[in-house]
Amino acid sequence: MSSLTSSRITALAGGVGAARFLRGVVRVVPETNLSVIVNTGDDEEFFGLSVSPDLDTVTYTLANAVDSEKGWGLPRETHRCLAALGRYYTDTWFGLGDADLATHLFRTQALRQGRTLSQATAAIARQWGIKATVLPMSNERVRTVVHTEAGALPFQEYFVKQRSEGQVSKVAFSGMETAQAAPGVVEALYSAELIVLPPSNPIVSIGPILSLPGVREALRATSAPVVAISPLVAGKPIKGPADRMLAGLGIEVSSVGVAKLYHDFVDTFVLDRQDIEHDPTPRERLEKMGMTVIVTDTVMSAMDKSVALARAVIEFAHQKRPKAES
Amino acid sequence: MSSLTSSRITALAGGVGAARFLRGVVRVVPETNLSVIVNTGDDEEFFGLSVSPDLDTVTYTLANAVDSEKGWGLPRETHRCLAALGRYYTDTWFGLGDADLATHLFRTQALRQGRTLSQATAAIARQWGIKATVLPMSNERVRTVVHTEAGALPFQEYFVKQRSEGQVSKVAFSGMETAQAAPGVVEALYSAELIVLPPSNPIVSIGPILSLPGVREALRATSAPVVAISPLVAGKPIKGPADRMLAGLGIEVSSVGVAKLYHDFVDTFVLDRQDIEHDPTPRERLEKMGMTVIVTDTVMSAMDKSVALARAVIEFAHQKRPKAES
Repeated sequence: MSSLTSSRITALAGGVGAARFLRGVVRVVPETNLSVIVNTGDDEEFFGLSVSPDLDTVTYTLANAVDSEKGWGLPRETHRCLAALGRYYTDTWFGLGDADLATHLFRTQALRQGRTLSQATAAIARQWGIKATVLPMSNERVRTVVHTEAGALPFQEYFVKQRSEGQVSKVAFSGMETAQAAPGVVEALYSAELIVLPPSNPIVSIGPILSLPGVREALRATSAPVVAISPLVAGKPIKGPADRMLAGLGIEVSSVGVAKLYHDFVDTFVLDRQDIEHDPTPRERLEKMGMTVIVTDTVMSAMDKSVALARAVIEFAHQKRPKAES
Repeated sequence: MSSLTSSRITALAGGVGAARFLRGVVRVVPETNLSVIVNTGDDEEFFGLSVSPDLDTVTYTLANAVDSEKGWGLPRETHRCLAALGRYYTDTWFGLGDADLATHLFRTQALRQGRTLSQATAAIARQWGIKATVLPMSNERVRTVVHTEAGALPFQEYFVKQRSEGQVSKVAFSGMETAQAAPGVVEALYSAELIVLPPSNPIVSIGPILSLPGVREALRATSAPVVAISPLVAGKPIKGPADRMLAGLGIEVSSVGVAKLYHDFVDTFVLDRQDIEHDPTPRERLEKMGMTVIVTDTVMSAMDKSVALARAVIEFAHQKRPKAES
């Protein structure tokens, strides 16, 4: 078995929850050992700019540059450009900060010059001094569409403009039919010694990644431990509409409900202590599904919590033998 | 003869000097009577954004929104995005303000969506509540290139990055060979009852406009008075490198030198008082060239000066019979 600090870890990431776990990971293992496959279903064009919220949240967080209170964007942001855009555009509900705009301008120009999103993302990560590998899930355009009684809404319109209101009846990934996993994505799964699904929305953050050709297959086939951290604590997400989405889609709104979505490839599930405080059932149900259960504190309100959770997951994985041999 | 307030005025404009004259014009005649043909040879792409400095200076000024001290850009600007762009780009010497960026984003998206620069410019002017007609000189890409001992420099690189240093040996307009005047440009010259060349750099501001097919012909053919206001006062421009450019190109650095460039279509030339204070020669030489000379205060340091100069030019033109009948 390789030493703790040399293990190669691949994570599937959404935004803030994932980024907060990853900031812990890179304090436990060398940053170069980490690959992150990031959801791009939330990407959107605003004012002609290519905006990739999850990629930027992961990048800014790994660079220790994120607004730590919000968990996304840059600290002490101003919104002078956005205010001025109000003269030309009706819809200025997406909060683009003045400093953050630079990233969108750079990415947009790179894409217009014919570079792929992978290349643009790598260049951005490099400029922020990040040594981890940050991979967009796909270089093709995939867009999450949320169906509510208000109709089919592009994700950001549902999430930011409508503040996740409304009953979700369906979530679709437009463009998925022709999308491929970006270069390095499937490879990062096969070469990993540990795969982690940090606490991210299973429907709109992890869901798009899992839908790409080859991803779910790799997760099933790998002999490395695949550990999922529940995005629900006592039945509620820390942030975002995961509970309402699950409910709307008829999925049990609980850690077990989330685990069921991953039943075919996750072997270890991390529950928050609060989830079994008064009720041993979740643990028992997960174990019945064949999963190993880790119970710990999963709420990463500060860096030390992120480090503790990352350490718990990584150390557990080291003690565990590969799936294939178990 | 039409009344003062109903006369149609067309101006050929560069940046600050022209804009300061035009702010006076729209206080003397109804704004709807003014058409401005604006140089686009100074346009440049920065960070993938289509930037049109002279168009924006004219637009912001007519909207009473310009930074009145600088004469360009928006007041109380911040440069947070530009500072952040420094992470991704080496060259951040062009001062893009955060609020100003909105205009570049809007124009860039409009152009990318297939609209012409004329259409984008009209939309921008409309959003700023401008009732004058603001016309880019061309919808084709024309770029002023300044040759100095440092080589052939794009205009903004010469003007902003190099601070107009170096001996100018040649000025070229890349793209001019295939460029056409934008829709409305030649029409605005033929339909004008007064044509004005406000104080703008004759080489790099007025020069590109005059080089477009049909423009110089229209200026020669019109029966309306064509009045040029000297951009040099006592042999010096108020702003910019006009004197050094003229010298470098072997042109007399004086109002008379500028008038010679316009000799075939300008019938009235406005000299600053300072120019003939101690020397009647400029007036005599201009009159010998067949031009009528107006002597007044041309330095538009405040709004009242702009209005006075505009009034002097417009009133003079009304007293003057059309060229064709003289």
